[in-house]
Amino acid sequence: MSERITIALDAMGGDRAPGIVVRGAEIALQRHPDVHFLVFGVEDEVSPLLAKLPRLGKSVTLHHTSEVVAGDAKPSLALRTGRQSSMRFAIDAVAEGRADGVVSAGNTGALMAMAKFALKMLPGIDRPAIASFFPTRRGESVMLDLGANVECDAENLVQFALMGDVFARTVLGLIEPTVGLLNVGSEDLKGNDAVREAAARLREAITPIHFYGFIEGDDIAAGTVDVVVTDGFTGNIAVKTAEGTVKLFGEFLESAFRHSLPARIGYLFARGALRKLRMRSDPRHYNGAIFLGLSGIAVKSHGSTDAFGFANAIGVAIDMKVNGVLDKIRDELARLSEAPSASEPAL
Amino acid sequence: MSERITIALDAMGGDRAPGIVVRGAEIALQRHPDVHFLVFGVEDEVSPLLAKLPRLGKSVTLHHTSEVVAGDAKPSLALRTGRQSSMRFAIDAVAEGRADGVVSAGNTGALMAMAKFALKMLPGIDRPAIASFFPTRRGESVMLDLGANVECDAENLVQFALMGDVFARTVLGLIEPTVGLLNVGSEDLKGNDAVREAAARLREAITPIHFYGFIEGDDIAAGTVDVVVTDGFTGNIAVKTAEGTVKLFGEFLESAFRHSLPARIGYLFARGALRKLRMRSDPRHYNGAIFLGLSGIAVKSHGSTDAFGFANAIGVAIDMKVNGVLDKIRDELARLSEAPSASEPAL
Repeated sequence: MSERITIALDAMGGDRAPGIVVRGAEIALQRHPDVHFLVFGVEDEVSPLLAKLPRLGKSVTLHHTSEVVAGDAKPSLALRTGRQSSMRFAIDAVAEGRADGVVSAGNTGALMAMAKFALKMLPGIDRPAIASFFPTRRGESVMLDLGANVECDAENLVQFALMGDVFARTVLGLIEPTVGLLNVGSEDLKGNDAVREAAARLREAITPIHFYGFIEGDDIAAGTVDVVVTDGFTGNIAVKTAEGTVKLFGEFLESAFRHSLPARIGYLFARGALRKLRMRSDPRHYNGAIFLGLSGIAVKSHGSTDAFGFANAIGVAIDMKVNGVLDKIRDELARLSEAPSASEPAL
Repeated sequence: MSERITIALDAMGGDRAPGIVVRGAEIALQRHPDVHFLVFGVEDEVSPLLAKLPRLGKSVTLHHTSEVVAGDAKPSLALRTGRQSSMRFAIDAVAEGRADGVVSAGNTGALMAMAKFALKMLPGIDRPAIASFFPTRRGESVMLDLGANVECDAENLVQFALMGDVFARTVLGLIEPTVGLLNVGSEDLKGNDAVREAAARLREAITPIHFYGFIEGDDIAAGTVDVVVTDGFTGNIAVKTAEGTVKLFGEFLESAFRHSLPARIGYLFARGALRKLRMRSDPRHYNGAIFLGLSGIAVKSHGSTDAFGFANAIGVAIDMKVNGVLDKIRDELARLSEAPSASEPAL
């Protein structure tokens, strides 16, 4: 990267803040030595942590903020009353052009409400979507929306498809990513009005999107498509269901290895391979959900992650900037609004 | 069981019918020697299979049917034109009191449409729900709806909660099953109108239901509640997402064991324990989804299952009958409609 990237960090968000935020920044700095951090948080808590990490200290500008958005605060209330919070100051740094992106492990709803208010939407996008990577049989895919919008209409889903497509092209580096709409069956008649209408429009529209059609729940892990599009209610439940299932399977596996003496011996031999498996299904690798659709980069880290997971969320924000994802979405939207439309408008 | 149980089988439904149906019946008969089967299917195909299984032959009455409901047939069309099909004849056997339950691995939508038409709803239930068991950290839970209703209102969800509760008490034998509503967060304000209103009613209603509140996707595998209630769109996607995730994890595990020589040696030692793990997460063990809410027992087997899986689906139908689940749901509904109501009606 040629120009220096600046990331704003909400040091006070998440279950183990500010510790994991500061140590996460230290890990991210090892991977991206040129990054500068604007850290927003309670000075008395953050300074002692920074003092222990002198190398990080040189790449950090600390801004004292006295207020913290509570993890269970109502988004609308946080938006009205949280103007002096670490979260809001970090977002404002992006809005005012002092930072290229913001990362927070705090209250998702509050972060979304503040980011929407301060960063505004990209022109042509009605609602932001939460997007994230996940591991599949074929590698990695991206899924959205993971919970920003409990209810979505066809127009929202079409916009999510477009943003997911650009994201997969730029950040995943895929040439012709396939996009699928999550549904209860693959036939045209399946599902609710929103998915059926969205599918019809994605089939007809003059977009660069390679629309695969409907996919089902088991297609997510199979990696049938590169971009899984769904409403925030279903997406949130699907991704958490998958997380819970991986956790349970891991526990079953552990108890299987404790089951007998031969199994314990087998574990000793297979330890290295199993460590690899654990890494492959480690949710920390996929930490960092992007708020797509905003005129600024905002990444939400899992609230209960550790420094390693938080560093990955920072990496997502950096990738977004380095790959110019927002500019490319903007270009794509402009191109579409100029393109001659078929029987239905492209968007 | 004192009285003899008769199960009607649609021999022609499913990817590998009639083979898996007949061999599945043979396995089920070993477990339930008193069961009698009414088998509906194409005689030329079914008879040779039965001829190879003389013990099963004695417990089977074969009814020749010439028509088969196609796997991709539209439910409404199958309902109108499929009156001579193996599926419809098998359902009619239950409707006419000649069988205690029907099992089919055929077209889910057609089976639901025909079963609803021929068996009718239980009084007080507006819509049937598809329910199934699944493995959790704590043992087994039941989830509904898994796809019968793409859209559900609060009333539907409350009725599903009640049916799931009775089902867990009777078939799972739980004394005070907990019931949770699947949502995107646990706070009261989360989710759409239907889940919020359903939660409010389940909290207030004078029902025997032990309502836990909202649960999230990761609570499914954790076994946080005994009964997971959701709409058919979300439920279908959640259960298929979990299936896909288990499959992927199993593949990752397999490739980990092939990864190196020590891992291969480890596998040899741990083989027995891993076989147990595989059994524990084998979807065939949980095969057999119940159409709850009908005045008759109808069980849907996975279309791609084998004889072992189909036998489990038959077992579910038998369990439903032995435990008198429908009578108990009927009693519960009658009791509730007579009970003095609080600020809101119980149902």
